[in-house]
Amino acid sequence: MTILILIPGRDCRDLAAALKKNDPTLDIRIWPNDGEQADIDYIISWNHPAGELHNYPNLKVVASFGAGVDHIFNDPALPENITITRLVDDCLARQMSDYVLGAILNHRLRLTEYREYQGAGVWSPKESRTGNHVCLLGLGNIGQEVTHSLTAQNFKVSGWSQNPKNIKGVTSFQGDDELAKAISDADYIVCLLPLTPQTENILDKTFFARAKKGAYLINVGRGGHLNEDDLLDAIYNEQISGACLDVFRTEPLPDAHPFWRHPKIYITPHSASLTNIEQAALQLIENHRKMQNNQPLSNQVDRTQGY
Amino acid sequence: MTILILIPGRDCRDLAAALKKNDPTLDIRIWPNDGEQADIDYIISWNHPAGELHNYPNLKVVASFGAGVDHIFNDPALPENITITRLVDDCLARQMSDYVLGAILNHRLRLTEYREYQGAGVWSPKESRTGNHVCLLGLGNIGQEVTHSLTAQNFKVSGWSQNPKNIKGVTSFQGDDELAKAISDADYIVCLLPLTPQTENILDKTFFARAKKGAYLINVGRGGHLNEDDLLDAIYNEQISGACLDVFRTEPLPDAHPFWRHPKIYITPHSASLTNIEQAALQLIENHRKMQNNQPLSNQVDRTQGY
Repeated sequence: MTILILIPGRDCRDLAAALKKNDPTLDIRIWPNDGEQADIDYIISWNHPAGELHNYPNLKVVASFGAGVDHIFNDPALPENITITRLVDDCLARQMSDYVLGAILNHRLRLTEYREYQGAGVWSPKESRTGNHVCLLGLGNIGQEVTHSLTAQNFKVSGWSQNPKNIKGVTSFQGDDELAKAISDADYIVCLLPLTPQTENILDKTFFARAKKGAYLINVGRGGHLNEDDLLDAIYNEQISGACLDVFRTEPLPDAHPFWRHPKIYITPHSASLTNIEQAALQLIENHRKMQNNQPLSNQVDRTQGY
Repeated sequence: MTILILIPGRDCRDLAAALKKNDPTLDIRIWPNDGEQADIDYIISWNHPAGELHNYPNLKVVASFGAGVDHIFNDPALPENITITRLVDDCLARQMSDYVLGAILNHRLRLTEYREYQGAGVWSPKESRTGNHVCLLGLGNIGQEVTHSLTAQNFKVSGWSQNPKNIKGVTSFQGDDELAKAISDADYIVCLLPLTPQTENILDKTFFARAKKGAYLINVGRGGHLNEDDLLDAIYNEQISGACLDVFRTEPLPDAHPFWRHPKIYITPHSASLTNIEQAALQLIENHRKMQNNQPLSNQVDRTQGY
C-alpha cells in the first residue's frame, strides 16, 4: 500500500527521499499528486485542508509531521476510524530545552537589552536579573527534557499539567484548580502545552492576573494558547515584564502585527524546534511497518484528550 | 590596624558598610580620605594609581576587589614584600558560567539575528547551529564551573591551561605547545584566562589561524588577551564567524571603536560577572582576621605566575 505526504506549501521531496532511503520499496506520493486515491492507507500530514482526508477510502493512519496534532483536530470533518500519531523526537525535545534555557538566560543576562545599547553606543552595565523560579506548563517528554536542563543550571522548577505527573526535581500541580497556585511564585512561565479545547486561550487576562508581578512569559506551545491583546495589556500594566514568543495565531506573523515592534516582546519565527527529517523518517517508517503488521503504533494520540 | 578601600571612581560606602556589618569594630577608610597613612596595613584595591601603595609604610596585604589581579601587577612600583590576594567567589563563577552558556545559546539559536529580523519585520526561520564543541582557555575555579554547566547541556568540552589540570568530563591540554591542538576542533573558544605577561595578546592572528574555520570567540578574560585588529581581520576573512566580548583594552569602550557597530561582534559592558558585595565582604574580612593572627591567607596570588 501507499504513503501520501500531505503538507500544503512545503516542498516535500526531501522527506520522500529520507523515507525511501530507509525503505526503497515504499510507494510514496506527494500531495496533490496522489494518483489512485484508494491505494493510500497512511498519510503524513501537516495542516491538511479540512475534509481532504475523506478522499482516501482506505486510510488507516494519519501521522503528524511534528509533535503537535492540533492542526489535525482542526479538521471538523476528521474521519472517525483512523489512528492518529505524532512525532516524539528526542531531538525536538533537546532543541526545545536549548531554546527555553537560551530564552531565560537571554532575559536574565539582558543580552537583548545590551544589543540595543550596543546599537545606540551606550555602555551601561547592570546586575543580572536574579529570578530563579521557572514554572513549566506541560510536563510531557519535552517538559521533562526542559526540566532536566533547567535543574542542571540550578533553576527551581515547578510544573503544571492536566493529569498528575511525578518528575524528579519538579514540584508539580495538576488540573484547573491548581493552575493559579502553580504560577503564583514563578519568575518565568513557559508554555509547552499541546493545543486542545481545554488549553486554548489559557494565557489570558485571568492567568496573567494570577502570575507573580513582573513574571516573564515564554510561549513555545501554540499561538492559540495566548490571548494576544491580554498579553499587551498585562505588559502595559507591568504585571508581566515581557515575553519571548515563538508561536503565533497567524504564522508568519502579519506585517501590521504590534508584536513586531514591541520593545518588551521578543519574537522568533517558529524556530524553537524544527523537525529533523532523518529522525522523523525513521519514526514514520517504523509506524508504517507496525501498521502493515497489525501491531500497535507508537506515539498514538488519544482522541478524547486531543494529544 | 586599619583597612583602606582604594578603588578610584567607585562610591565605596556600600563596601565599607558591608565590612562593618561583619565586624563593627573595624577601622575602615575610603581613599583618598586615608587619614594617618601609617595606620594602614590592609588595602582593598581595584585599579589603584601606580606608585600609590608606597605611601603606606606598614602595608602588608593588597586584596583585589575581584577575581583578576592584573590591575595590581600593572603597577610598575608594586612593593616587594606585600601579600596579594584575590576574590574566589562561587557567585562570580556561577555568573560567569551563566554568561558563557547564555552567549553560546544566543549564537546557536541565532537569538540576536532574530532580534534584528524582528526589527526589520522579517520572518525567516533557520535551523539552529549544530556546533557542539567548546574549548575553554583557563581551567581554574571559574573554568570548572563553566565545564559543569556546559557538560550538563551535552556540550563536548575541552580545556587548555598553563599547568596540567585533571577535570572530569574535560579533555585537557597544557602549555604553549598544546594550544594549537586544544583549539583546532572547537566550534566555540572561550577565554577565561587571567591576564599575565604569558597570556597577553594570546588571541592574535596566529591563534585565529589555528582555530577551526568558522569558530566563534567568547572573551570574558581581559581586554588585553585580544589583539582587536587581528580579530577584525579574522572575522573579515571568515576564519572566525563572530565574537561575543565582555572585556576590552579600554573600558568603557571608546565611542569611535569599530566594535560598537560591527554586525558580527556582540558586546556587553564588562557585565558577565559583577562582584557581589556581601560575599566579597565575607572573604575580605576573613583574610583580614587571618592577617592579624599571622595565619596563611586564602586565595593568595603567586607573584611569579601573576595569578
